[in-house]
Amino acid sequence: MKLVASLGTSPGGILETFEYLRGRGIEVNDIVIVKTKDSAVSKAYDYLLSMFSCCVKLRYNDVMMGAIDLPFSDITTSDDLNELMKIVSPAINQGDYVDITGGRKAISMVMGLIAMKRKAHVVTTIVSQSKYNEVQEKLRKGHQPVTQNCSPSDKEFFCSLLSSDAVTIEINL
Amino acid sequence: MKLVASLGTSPGGILETFEYLRGRGIEVNDIVIVKTKDSAVSKAYDYLLSMFSCCVKLRYNDVMMGAIDLPFSDITTSDDLNELMKIVSPAINQGDYVDITGGRKAISMVMGLIAMKRKAHVVTTIVSQSKYNEVQEKLRKGHQPVTQNCSPSDKEFFCSLLSSDAVTIEINL
Repeated sequence: MKLVASLGTSPGGILETFEYLRGRGIEVNDIVIVKTKDSAVSKAYDYLLSMFSCCVKLRYNDVMMGAIDLPFSDITTSDDLNELMKIVSPAINQGDYVDITGGRKAISMVMGLIAMKRKAHVVTTIVSQSKYNEVQEKLRKGHQPVTQNCSPSDKEFFCSLLSSDAVTIEINL
Repeated sequence: MKLVASLGTSPGGILETFEYLRGRGIEVNDIVIVKTKDSAVSKAYDYLLSMFSCCVKLRYNDVMMGAIDLPFSDITTSDDLNELMKIVSPAINQGDYVDITGGRKAISMVMGLIAMKRKAHVVTTIVSQSKYNEVQEKLRKGHQPVTQNCSPSDKEFFCSLLSSDAVTIEINL
């Protein structure tokens, strides 16, 4: 089963959603990140990949992570929304999970609507404002992303970006 | 016609949406703000009221602004989402405009779904990250909200929180 998630400028949320679903016995084994060309989003993606390698992959070695790259830096017109829909729709199937937590509201809204049309689940993960600020501060200070092996200090840094008190809820009206 | 808008911790977006709609000849004369009990949201609302008095009301004196108060500080459960739906649904009618720009993604998503069910328009306003940061910085420094008359310095401060390069788009799939 797939978890399709929009990414904003913070890497948090997506892996918390994954852990929540796996913790409830839902066999998500494919994480697909939807992202723009924006430089802050690209940076968040590099960190997310490192978090995935250092903190998730070691425990769930059946899981893959990939990305859908949108051909723009930001949503600025209705045409961008239509393009987003055309690109993302084929990736979402019945029963999949769509996490709308990250990125622009317009992107989340469109992904949520696609999910509802396709009978996929719409979920969002809520991280406390203090944890969000803490993660943003760590991102500002920076840490070299992991491309090969994950050292103990990499592990310490990247796993500290995950929130232990995140709450995932399903939007099911 | 009504503009129903979710509010987050930044007052920006809503009045830009209003100006965009009025600028296109859409006779919005009732702005309804959906807000939680969160203290940062309450602060944003005080600023929004001041921006409304100093920058909007003087030019559009037929317009009213009011609020729907949600009975919680944050969305943390699916029950909160159901409660949100029950409270907000009656306020949205066919042809109204629903601005999902502010607040938690879950709140935006639910409001967007209500709008679609009711054949209202779903819109979002995109403000540049630099303008967003500038407004957040001004909010941190602070300025006494306006309760009665708007002095020239109030006007200068509160109108500077409005973005002149905001883009409003309709989400219509």
